[in-house]
Amino acid sequence: MSGVIQKLASQVARPEGAFTAWIGANDLAIVDALAREAFDAVMLDMQHGGFDFVGAARGVAAAALAGKPALVRIPVEDFATGSRLVDAGAAGIIAPMINSAEDARRLADFLKYPPLGRRSWGPRACLPLSGLAGQAYLESANSFTLAIAMIETREAVDELDAILSTPGIDGVFVGPSDLSITLSGGRVDPFGKLVADALATIVERARANKKFAGLFCFDGVAAKAGVERGLSFCSIATDLLLLRSAAKAELAAARPAVTTKAR
Amino acid sequence: MSGVIQKLASQVARPEGAFTAWIGANDLAIVDALAREAFDAVMLDMQHGGFDFVGAARGVAAAALAGKPALVRIPVEDFATGSRLVDAGAAGIIAPMINSAEDARRLADFLKYPPLGRRSWGPRACLPLSGLAGQAYLESANSFTLAIAMIETREAVDELDAILSTPGIDGVFVGPSDLSITLSGGRVDPFGKLVADALATIVERARANKKFAGLFCFDGVAAKAGVERGLSFCSIATDLLLLRSAAKAELAAARPAVTTKAR
Amino acid sequence: MSGVIQKLASQVARPEGAFTAWIGANDLAIVDALAREAFDAVMLDMQHGGFDFVGAARGVAAAALAGKPALVRIPVEDFATGSRLVDAGAAGIIAPMINSAEDARRLADFLKYPPLGRRSWGPRACLPLSGLAGQAYLESANSFTLAIAMIETREAVDELDAILSTPGIDGVFVGPSDLSITLSGGRVDPFGKLVADALATIVERARANKKFAGLFCFDGVAAKAGVERGLSFCSIATDLLLLRSAAKAELAAARPAVTTKAR
Amino acid sequence: MSGVIQKLASQVARPEGAFTAWIGANDLAIVDALAREAFDAVMLDMQHGGFDFVGAARGVAAAALAGKPALVRIPVEDFATGSRLVDAGAAGIIAPMINSAEDARRLADFLKYPPLGRRSWGPRACLPLSGLAGQAYLESANSFTLAIAMIETREAVDELDAILSTPGIDGVFVGPSDLSITLSGGRVDPFGKLVADALATIVERARANKKFAGLFCFDGVAAKAGVERGLSFCSIATDLLLLRSAAKAELAAARPAVTTKAR
Amino acid sequence: MSGVIQKLASQVARPEGAFTAWIGANDLAIVDALAREAFDAVMLDMQHGGFDFVGAARGVAAAALAGKPALVRIPVEDFATGSRLVDAGAAGIIAPMINSAEDARRLADFLKYPPLGRRSWGPRACLPLSGLAGQAYLESANSFTLAIAMIETREAVDELDAILSTPGIDGVFVGPSDLSITLSGGRVDPFGKLVADALATIVERARANKKFAGLFCFDGVAAKAGVERGLSFCSIATDLLLLRSAAKAELAAARPAVTTKAR
Amino acid sequence: MSGVIQKLASQVARPEGAFTAWIGANDLAIVDALAREAFDAVMLDMQHGGFDFVGAARGVAAAALAGKPALVRIPVEDFATGSRLVDAGAAGIIAPMINSAEDARRLADFLKYPPLGRRSWGPRACLPLSGLAGQAYLESANSFTLAIAMIETREAVDELDAILSTPGIDGVFVGPSDLSITLSGGRVDPFGKLVADALATIVERARANKKFAGLFCFDGVAAKAGVERGLSFCSIATDLLLLRSAAKAELAAARPAVTTKAR
Repeated sequence: MSGVIQKLASQVARPEGAFTAWIGANDLAIVDALAREAFDAVMLDMQHGGFDFVGAARGVAAAALAGKPALVRIPVEDFATGSRLVDAGAAGIIAPMINSAEDARRLADFLKYPPLGRRSWGPRACLPLSGLAGQAYLESANSFTLAIAMIETREAVDELDAILSTPGIDGVFVGPSDLSITLSGGRVDPFGKLVADALATIVERARANKKFAGLFCFDGVAAKAGVERGLSFCSIATDLLLLRSAAKAELAAARPAVTTKAR
Repeated sequence: MSGVIQKLASQVARPEGAFTAWIGANDLAIVDALAREAFDAVMLDMQHGGFDFVGAARGVAAAALAGKPALVRIPVEDFATGSRLVDAGAAGIIAPMINSAEDARRLADFLKYPPLGRRSWGPRACLPLSGLAGQAYLESANSFTLAIAMIETREAVDELDAILSTPGIDGVFVGPSDLSITLSGGRVDPFGKLVADALATIVERARANKKFAGLFCFDGVAAKAGVERGLSFCSIATDLLLLRSAAKAELAAARPAVTTKAR
Repeated sequence: MSGVIQKLASQVARPEGAFTAWIGANDLAIVDALAREAFDAVMLDMQHGGFDFVGAARGVAAAALAGKPALVRIPVEDFATGSRLVDAGAAGIIAPMINSAEDARRLADFLKYPPLGRRSWGPRACLPLSGLAGQAYLESANSFTLAIAMIETREAVDELDAILSTPGIDGVFVGPSDLSITLSGGRVDPFGKLVADALATIVERARANKKFAGLFCFDGVAAKAGVERGLSFCSIATDLLLLRSAAKAELAAARPAVTTKAR
Repeated sequence: MSGVIQKLASQVARPEGAFTAWIGANDLAIVDALAREAFDAVMLDMQHGGFDFVGAARGVAAAALAGKPALVRIPVEDFATGSRLVDAGAAGIIAPMINSAEDARRLADFLKYPPLGRRSWGPRACLPLSGLAGQAYLESANSFTLAIAMIETREAVDELDAILSTPGIDGVFVGPSDLSITLSGGRVDPFGKLVADALATIVERARANKKFAGLFCFDGVAAKAGVERGLSFCSIATDLLLLRSAAKAELAAARPAVTTKAR
Repeated sequence: MSGVIQKLASQVARPEGAFTAWIGANDLAIVDALAREAFDAVMLDMQHGGFDFVGAARGVAAAALAGKPALVRIPVEDFATGSRLVDAGAAGIIAPMINSAEDARRLADFLKYPPLGRRSWGPRACLPLSGLAGQAYLESANSFTLAIAMIETREAVDELDAILSTPGIDGVFVGPSDLSITLSGGRVDPFGKLVADALATIVERARANKKFAGLFCFDGVAAKAGVERGLSFCSIATDLLLLRSAAKAELAAARPAVTTKAR
Repeated sequence: MSGVIQKLASQVARPEGAFTAWIGANDLAIVDALAREAFDAVMLDMQHGGFDFVGAARGVAAAALAGKPALVRIPVEDFATGSRLVDAGAAGIIAPMINSAEDARRLADFLKYPPLGRRSWGPRACLPLSGLAGQAYLESANSFTLAIAMIETREAVDELDAILSTPGIDGVFVGPSDLSITLSGGRVDPFGKLVADALATIVERARANKKFAGLFCFDGVAAKAGVERGLSFCSIATDLLLLRSAAKAELAAARPAVTTKAR
């Protein structure tokens, strides 16, 4: 699986887009199952999901065994864990709540080697998973280790150019639910006009800064639409959304006359 | 969640049937997610799945928190683990490869208190999950702790009445893939005529012995059909089948022009 | 166990007080055992105890299965973990070493949704454990998700009003050992006059700010006394203190003539 | 902690008796806490407790760090796990449901090296914990690695001499609850006359066979009485009994006017 | 890593031999490190090592990520765990203490599909790791899933032809320490004449039965000698032997004047 | 093992030096194996290794069982975890990327009790492992709980005196690879002149400030040389370097005619 880490960097910016699974359960069987489907990557969620450091590092290996790169969303401000996970072979880090150039600077510092950033030297599984030896990894890792800043507050939208132009930031990823809460003053409305307008701005500014923009999408239809609107890196649903919707469908087939009990 | 264990015993034999989720990944998030859907129970698989004892015991608790009873399929002949898991609050045990009255006798011995069997006294989570205190649990546990024998070889079909009439055996559960392999001499053919004929016999003999019969089903449609044929306790798909089929559908929606890469 | 999270917010401020177990061992059996006793809540300690994120999240579920809300004490300044644990269903967070209004502001930011704070949207087990769906949870979570600031230094006492008046802070909780060390200049003296005087001030200022005050107590007698002095939320002993004192008593009964070996 | 394993063999047969803690929760903090009290050993329960192999092996190390030998109760018939745990440094194995000379023979075979038994060579932590090098360990391990047969059925009482005289069996240990169920035909009555009479017989026959006899005791008073009746190796309560009784007492002190809620 | 499982079956019988690492620590980092060296396989030890089922299944995946097949040595008589681990992708099972044709029959039954054995259908990771779909796996798995019987007692040597001729047994593997103990009547003497003579017999009888013979070897020199004597599948040292000998050498270099403290 | 924590503080500054194992795999068997060799301490790496908090805390206990003190390298800026691990009995903390007096101040604050620092009171395993009771531990812990600042950037070298003179900092430890990257502008060159010159400066300034200086060394020869140059606390290789170099040597002995496959 040598070279599995490097694949994603070019895919996230291509016009036809790249799609990632989004996994919240800290479970290797789910990582394996979804990595074997036609996703371009899997995303392991520490912020709102159940992954801890050990689980995420194992998840990166499980994805690699299925031939896929893995991203990890770290907890808010926990950039040091981002460093540890790229050492463990993650193809990149999604950092939530990047609201300023200073936040973006911290993210890049922890993921990029000097002089671009201040990542400390100590590669582990990233060497065999990249197929590179030490010095070669040092010289090329900055180009394929993705630092992805989540844009999910009004403040972040206001600071968009400063974030996008921070050296070492590769792209932005929109969290539409959080963004809707601050834009609307308290409603979870990820599909509303306020978010849609912000998305258009974000795509436009990302292009101007030669960075990619991505979006959390609740299903495949939304992901297709996202790519068509220029959000070239879209997630699709989550592990538990997939599992529960499929279970509901099968139960409805098993008990057609009964309204399935809502939780 | 007091009383959660006792629910299942009456449901598995009712005409409209009972349906269980079938979980192979040793993961509490999956147990929680499926237990919150409209299944009557969840089944945790140690034989061909990833559960170990600790994971299965925690899975029983996770199901209970969602208000659902849990069954555990133990490894072949590992009856002692069955005892430990009913102590931990499992509503019953599915034992694979019960091929003779002697196998059935061993299963019942480990799950039923004397004089019916030889289960050792030492209840743990089964007390709070049943809502019963010691002596009351001792006196009633045999009635609701299900000992379910898997019928999955030609030999087992030949010994069906001996198995069904073993005191302490509550029902049988058919593994159609294994059964097809021995009936056909080497083909995995769970939907073929050989299995269908065996199923009719099994339903008929179970009724004659006043025990229930169940069936592993690959989807909801099959489970509905199973209940209609008298297999009153049917599983529906598996966790990973649900997850992967839903992922395939969403990916097809995201990339309609592309044939999704088969693994 | 729907609604288990919401119970505690009203109990911590009532005159007759609320009592919590205090658990340091990262162990679900202990959480279960103590949650089934007559405590109002259980507190899982990450700062000086053995819990990590995964253990604490499971501990929250174990407490809920016994019908009890759980609090978690996070490591110093690790507010992001606080966010993750209220997503996992914790009824609140106890944050150690809150020494300034800025510290208090950070705590509230991570636990309360906008506009009160900056908690990110992504509820997990807190939805089924609260029995609320998304928007309803968003609108009410700030009222029952407790942000509790530990007062345990001279500096914190000096900044008490600033801490107590920080929007989003629900109450304070005194760590008497640490407080005694800084007040006395180096003695562990949680029962001394310096701490007692500070407690009186803290109760008085908490009332003036319409917030509750709590206290770590080494046993039930002290907890009773604490409530009588206006500290309406008191912990009682710790898991290991309970275990070891009971062991000593039984060993003394078993070997009356022998002085039990002190460790 | 070199030599910690060997201590127990001589203690279990001395007139003043030896006392062991009895631990069901698969938790190292509990093992540590109780091993630091004045017990002679700790007993880790796999049969009715939560320990798995990995937890028990770590528990043995935790006990050793506190200077105490550890026993493990294996699941019914799982003698191979007994072998693995003495390799891991357990001072002995308590095997439940030894009902015949054949059962006793199997137990001894897995715990004693040839020619006494058939234990396979492959010592691990038992070398540093015994302080012995390979050949010395091989030559002496049979003398201090305890094979303890539980007597807990009528059948076992009937086969008592055959069990006690099996080469390699070091002693017997009575499970009074299970024994009462089979003697009484269905009542949990560990303190009744039927068990008391059986205990007298067991003590007498053990002495005649030059083996020790032990008893599970619910508290220190019972353990003292047990030793006085010749049961020279008594357990005292369990981890969770200690924890819950201490919690009840502290809660009663905290809320004197309130009847504590029974679970 | 598709096809990784199948590699080993042809290698173990070739004249130049195959070499496996031997791993006792239940640790994925060690599996990864040794699998990336020039071993043909890695062997994960449950009998005398620290692996449990979950650890061994993860170890199989870790080896596969490094492109190597994994074997697992199961605990004595725990054949059901062998079945589970070949489902998890192990290339074969080493079963200790196979002393009779009946033992050999049990081993083959659990590892080979009908009609050769009685392995139950339920492949998991073995499908992607073999690169085969269901029916193809069913038809070919018996040819590459290795059932390896350990010969380590006088009794086993006496029954050698019966063991070797059992259908489904692929080869034998000698445990020289245990064998020396029973041959010598109590000495650990793996390099002595008694074992050497037995090895010659075993090689000769294996050839006559067209099965391969292997040997546990303490270092590379012994493994080379083993292959030269016809033992075509040799292990080399163990993880901890490698680690400790290398540590001793480096410490001697660091402190040349000091005799390193022996443990 | 009472007193195991205190040993190291005096050893790190003695002329003949102290040597520590360096462990990256989150594995207790490795900790045990290396702690039983003639190292003065073991170092558990969270920054670039696989340890998490729970693993590190258990590793500290495993080292203590072998009679050795343990250090932990925390992730960058994660000082709170440092506090938790000295509570768990670590003999000290190595903090990476200490680049300023402010960084050094934070490190000391989290590890030293007032008035020197701001460590919170709540000792756990550090009490039995030090053999001290509460007040005695409070009064002496600052003297033996090591706060070790890593010097691994040009910036840190520039701030060396400020770091060394920060109250509570006990010594510095050089990471030569990272240091070479910033000194050289992008080459991993730990053995080059730039690093050698910096080491001379660091030794000289450490002496002037009456603190010790240490160095990460790739093997025993380098560690000997380091001590001779005044770096009195040297690590030797890493767990995986030892394991892989020993494996390579044994494989070369087993297959002398074959060039071993490089990874």
